[in-house]
Amino acid sequence: MNRISIGVDLGGTNLRIAAVDEQGALLEKVTLGTKVSLGRDRVIDDMCDAIQRVSVKYKDSAPLLGIGIGVPGIIDMQTGLLRESPNLPGWADYPVRAEIERRLNTIVVLGNDANVAALGEEWLGAAKGFADMAMVTLGTGVGGGLVLGGKIWHGANGMAGEWGHATVEPEGHPCGCGNRGCLEQYASAPAVVRMAREAIATNGGSALARAANSNPEFSAKSIYNLAIQGDEDARRIFRYMGRCLGIVLATLVNSLNLPIYVIGGGVSSAWEAFSPAMFEELRRRSIVYAATAPDDPSAIKEGASAHVEAGPGPKTIVTRALLGSDAGLYGAARLPMIAGARR
Amino acid sequence: MNRISIGVDLGGTNLRIAAVDEQGALLEKVTLGTKVSLGRDRVIDDMCDAIQRVSVKYKDSAPLLGIGIGVPGIIDMQTGLLRESPNLPGWADYPVRAEIERRLNTIVVLGNDANVAALGEEWLGAAKGFADMAMVTLGTGVGGGLVLGGKIWHGANGMAGEWGHATVEPEGHPCGCGNRGCLEQYASAPAVVRMAREAIATNGGSALARAANSNPEFSAKSIYNLAIQGDEDARRIFRYMGRCLGIVLATLVNSLNLPIYVIGGGVSSAWEAFSPAMFEELRRRSIVYAATAPDDPSAIKEGASAHVEAGPGPKTIVTRALLGSDAGLYGAARLPMIAGARR
Repeated sequence: MNRISIGVDLGGTNLRIAAVDEQGALLEKVTLGTKVSLGRDRVIDDMCDAIQRVSVKYKDSAPLLGIGIGVPGIIDMQTGLLRESPNLPGWADYPVRAEIERRLNTIVVLGNDANVAALGEEWLGAAKGFADMAMVTLGTGVGGGLVLGGKIWHGANGMAGEWGHATVEPEGHPCGCGNRGCLEQYASAPAVVRMAREAIATNGGSALARAANSNPEFSAKSIYNLAIQGDEDARRIFRYMGRCLGIVLATLVNSLNLPIYVIGGGVSSAWEAFSPAMFEELRRRSIVYAATAPDDPSAIKEGASAHVEAGPGPKTIVTRALLGSDAGLYGAARLPMIAGARR
Repeated sequence: MNRISIGVDLGGTNLRIAAVDEQGALLEKVTLGTKVSLGRDRVIDDMCDAIQRVSVKYKDSAPLLGIGIGVPGIIDMQTGLLRESPNLPGWADYPVRAEIERRLNTIVVLGNDANVAALGEEWLGAAKGFADMAMVTLGTGVGGGLVLGGKIWHGANGMAGEWGHATVEPEGHPCGCGNRGCLEQYASAPAVVRMAREAIATNGGSALARAANSNPEFSAKSIYNLAIQGDEDARRIFRYMGRCLGIVLATLVNSLNLPIYVIGGGVSSAWEAFSPAMFEELRRRSIVYAATAPDDPSAIKEGASAHVEAGPGPKTIVTRALLGSDAGLYGAARLPMIAGARR
């Protein structure tokens, strides 16, 4: 009998719930708003109600393996406490896992949202067919996740995968984390906008300046549109972003020698604008990548596993994520399916 | 009955062989010169003779689990071929494992020398009691190894652990690998000497300059001696070295969140001179380290596991290696003892 689990993506804005079977088929998806302002208990009530409405439908046809929840914050994997969560005020040190297990009387597995998205891409997305992979998520911040042997690598304190705070420029732009020159300061959506404003400050008559002045919602997307139209200032920003991402990827590839690295998050839509510089840096700065790069890395876009070439060893693939925001939902549903996920 | 294995450290200069039991007791150690100039077959003859002389003694008292060999080069873990080895010319693509298994009629497990040293420190050295650790080896080059779940993490192509080629300064000193600003260009013994010569070029009357002129063997050790005596130029070099090492460690800690990182190799003897700057950078540049650092990280020198403090999670320890050049020998002996080491 096909078993199912329920994945929950508990974001600061949206609360999404899906029933997924062991083959990865999506049976049902529910999207609610996360009523953060009404307090923690209300959010948990909403979540548990929705989980029960979904699970009751499959009660007789497919046994429930458990519930996986992707949470934006640092989780204590041993105790199931949410230690810190900037997007969920009032949840710090709350025993999320125990509370939901008690209410629903089933197994609950928590995961950090960025890690869970990596697991989703590993299970059903760009890294399908690979047991070992890393994902870098470029969004409002830069986060990531590491999957080894088909399981999330949480690290000793549940804090692994923080590539966003890898140092790219030792004396570079200050970061909120206390460091300078973190990847997040060059490869997140706000960083792209900041770099554009810096360029405008030195050249007020540019197309970039005109776009910023005429568009009240001047965003990384607007800058990408200019880059695609050939505007040199906009292109330079994405080249710099690609260079910074390439530097961090080079260190990751040299350190871990994984078969595949997946780039996701909203800013990864600008792939065409930043990936040539990223691949150039990667080849120049990683001896491991230089020895294992596919002949045409940019040609590998989907179904990466089909592109692994024969030779002295597997090729190193760097590719775009495939699942978008569903990665976190699939990854959460995957959590109860894999043994030892609580490590 | 206590079983043994035989560890071999096949260096470009020395060939060392040891019989070690499952508890890590060293039963016997043999050191020979590696007669590289007499050719590959001669080295293999010498190695097999020595292994047989050692193993015959324990034949009746302790069953032999196998032979582990640490090799300076890139190994194809599936086939047991030595793919590349700058220090062993003529060995490229040689089926080392198959040949020695055939001659000695026992199990042979190969490992890269830097990875094997990490395994030795994990089993019996500074990281004893930890299953997950990384080691950075500061010597003529900068290498390293990663041990996860008590086993070497080889990576997809046997090339993991190349922290020496992590980028510290994107536009920094050129490296032989093709990159610029690799850690190896700031934290190896030749790098320390190069930085001293750069300092001398701008200040010819310094104590550093006098030492370089009077000592034909002006080395990282001479520069360390000056630093310890309080010479500001020499101290500045080690502070810069510590800063660069701290930057790479910060990225490692943010990425992997391991409980312990071990610094070994000859240059690690200069710990007193470089570690204050290293810890300072680590704390400033790694959000994971800042959240998990022990109260007095520099106090943790030996028997690190005794220092792990209670609290919301394990502390992150950065400490010196304990086994010196024996790490590679113990690590090699460990290889046949751990299942799945061939991965």
